[in-house]
Amino acid sequence: MGQGMHLRDKAAVAGIGATEFSKNSGRSELQLAVEAITAALDDAGLTSTDVDGLCTFAMDTNVEDEVFRNLGGHELRLFSRIDYGGGAGGGVVLQAAMAVAAGVAETVVVYRAMNERSGTRFGAPITASGATPDQLVRGLHTCQGLQTPGAFMAMAIRRYMHDTGATSEDFGLVSVNARRNAATNPKAWFYNKPITLEDHQASRLVAEPMRLLDFCQESDGGVAMVITSLERARDLKQPPVRIRSASQGLPRGTNPMSSFYRPDIAPRDEARTTARKLYELAGITPDDVDVAIIYDHFGPSLLPALEAYGFCDYGESKDFIREGHIRLEGRLPVNTNGGQLGEAYIHGMNGFAEAVRQVRGTAVNQIANVEHVLATAGNVVPTSAVIFGRD
Amino acid sequence: MGQGMHLRDKAAVAGIGATEFSKNSGRSELQLAVEAITAALDDAGLTSTDVDGLCTFAMDTNVEDEVFRNLGGHELRLFSRIDYGGGAGGGVVLQAAMAVAAGVAETVVVYRAMNERSGTRFGAPITASGATPDQLVRGLHTCQGLQTPGAFMAMAIRRYMHDTGATSEDFGLVSVNARRNAATNPKAWFYNKPITLEDHQASRLVAEPMRLLDFCQESDGGVAMVITSLERARDLKQPPVRIRSASQGLPRGTNPMSSFYRPDIAPRDEARTTARKLYELAGITPDDVDVAIIYDHFGPSLLPALEAYGFCDYGESKDFIREGHIRLEGRLPVNTNGGQLGEAYIHGMNGFAEAVRQVRGTAVNQIANVEHVLATAGNVVPTSAVIFGRD
Repeated sequence: MGQGMHLRDKAAVAGIGATEFSKNSGRSELQLAVEAITAALDDAGLTSTDVDGLCTFAMDTNVEDEVFRNLGGHELRLFSRIDYGGGAGGGVVLQAAMAVAAGVAETVVVYRAMNERSGTRFGAPITASGATPDQLVRGLHTCQGLQTPGAFMAMAIRRYMHDTGATSEDFGLVSVNARRNAATNPKAWFYNKPITLEDHQASRLVAEPMRLLDFCQESDGGVAMVITSLERARDLKQPPVRIRSASQGLPRGTNPMSSFYRPDIAPRDEARTTARKLYELAGITPDDVDVAIIYDHFGPSLLPALEAYGFCDYGESKDFIREGHIRLEGRLPVNTNGGQLGEAYIHGMNGFAEAVRQVRGTAVNQIANVEHVLATAGNVVPTSAVIFGRD
Repeated sequence: MGQGMHLRDKAAVAGIGATEFSKNSGRSELQLAVEAITAALDDAGLTSTDVDGLCTFAMDTNVEDEVFRNLGGHELRLFSRIDYGGGAGGGVVLQAAMAVAAGVAETVVVYRAMNERSGTRFGAPITASGATPDQLVRGLHTCQGLQTPGAFMAMAIRRYMHDTGATSEDFGLVSVNARRNAATNPKAWFYNKPITLEDHQASRLVAEPMRLLDFCQESDGGVAMVITSLERARDLKQPPVRIRSASQGLPRGTNPMSSFYRPDIAPRDEARTTARKLYELAGITPDDVDVAIIYDHFGPSLLPALEAYGFCDYGESKDFIREGHIRLEGRLPVNTNGGQLGEAYIHGMNGFAEAVRQVRGTAVNQIANVEHVLATAGNVVPTSAVIFGRD
């Protein structure tokens, strides 16, 4: 069938935009969304009347019609939502790429805006209070004390340590790397605030085996990207960043935030499924990836994700990290913006923007000669990812 | 740009399925979804492991992973949601068609399942209880007593009557037509229960000027459709029904269930926007449509919708209806299954299934020589529609 081949390089990122990242934005999520979108349109040299598609996360509170009205748009040909929290980042890019490839829309904006720190905090305990299918399944877990993302993640990470010999120090190196990159990124919350491995090891256990400095931030902010055809992007203000491929993945046995239906809860089947199609469509291998943006709501989740996306065999990412390969000087610089541990937690969308900057050559921690950047969404839920490429 | 032309006739409906339509299904919405999907796959001669895409309404409680697990699926390449209640029906078909055209997925199932009568009833008063953008806007209306879909619709319909001279009797003819068609449809709730215009006129006012028999039913049930490439559909069990075109529309000034930002609240700008692209993509005109399935959550809404989809000029659908053109013997048979007034209210998805049957030639109230069927989603919200065609 040439599965997915119709999508490769059909669409490109023409603009990116964001608000500041803070702990208290002082304004509505709608305003954050509109500010981020306006900035992305400015970056592309387009205006709000050019926009004919809006795609966002199912969790985003900003309904398309209100965003569009406040933006001053003319007419939408596509509006859609992707489920599963932080798993949606690549999914909204896929929506845009599909719509552009199929000629359904010409200028699609993907966005995510939230007051996740000053408003609704995702780390608060969830309860099973209803009778929808997901609430019923969650009811089996909440009574066991599994009520927070950290608690769910801790279970899988404990098993991962048992399987692979990864240690808390290995996780610490992930946080140290993120904070080092954030320290030289003026947009990052933790600008000028690097940490040491000793800081990480001294931070308190929150959900054993995970420490405070394994947890990402809670942030307020908005991020948007403008996606159009590669051909049209070439006539716009910025050098186009190709969407080589975009992919979603939801394999058999999936249960968001856990893998309780599977024989082993430690690997990342969602990410493996996503990765397989992603590379196939892009026509590249993990060796061709120059920079990786890996969703780091929790630093330890980076280890199984590096393996799922083919950079190491299962259990070997700890060695990869110990050898310094994820650092700016390494073989595969990871989360060059500081990631969600260091820059901000905007449900991963800030990482997608960093991927675009790395391809453009405009990142604050710019890597030389970047041709391909992988950016992933959250990898313990039905997930998604994108490979961006130089034109 | 050849806008949208890449989509025409690329995808086809290979299977349709539904549960019974009732007022008390006696089982979960998840079970309804899985039953409807299984029936649609059986109809297509496919199995659950063939499914690689699931798209549904944002309002559907059935999360994709639970549907997929209970279905016994293998791997999803696409999962997405469309906002705006009953406006989503054509949007999910558009998702499937885009994914198939772009090679992202091969077998996409679109579904809608709900216990809308025995569970959450949409007619219950809504309140503005939060601070999300839509809740804030709704807060301006609820304190004026605009708390139900009927109340919102009544405002627009009153204005429409003022503008056009349409009367309650004209609305009554819509209900009489629906109930006549339902009367000969064994799957319809109102099978064997036709009404007269006198019955309609004698029914009590619920939201003036709308009477009880202007309101659609509240129903429990599920409907699903299997969509794949036209080429592949030709090798399957049923004759393929082409998706000539699918379109969404959200124009400037949209506010769901009202048009309060516009100079005139009576016309249907969302439907007009959707219709324009729909016919352009299909390469046909309203004259080429043999049967129309028009979303009839309220019978009166059929009049402005007939005009928005180009079957009459503004204000003239009352004459079109008086002349009998929407009847089975008429120029444009409408809602041949009995519609949501007569068959069931499954958020419009049962109408999309009827459209497929009319093209196949297997409807209980079959129209002769059907080549093109229009099916619309709800037309007072950001909406969508599909033109199905014979292969």
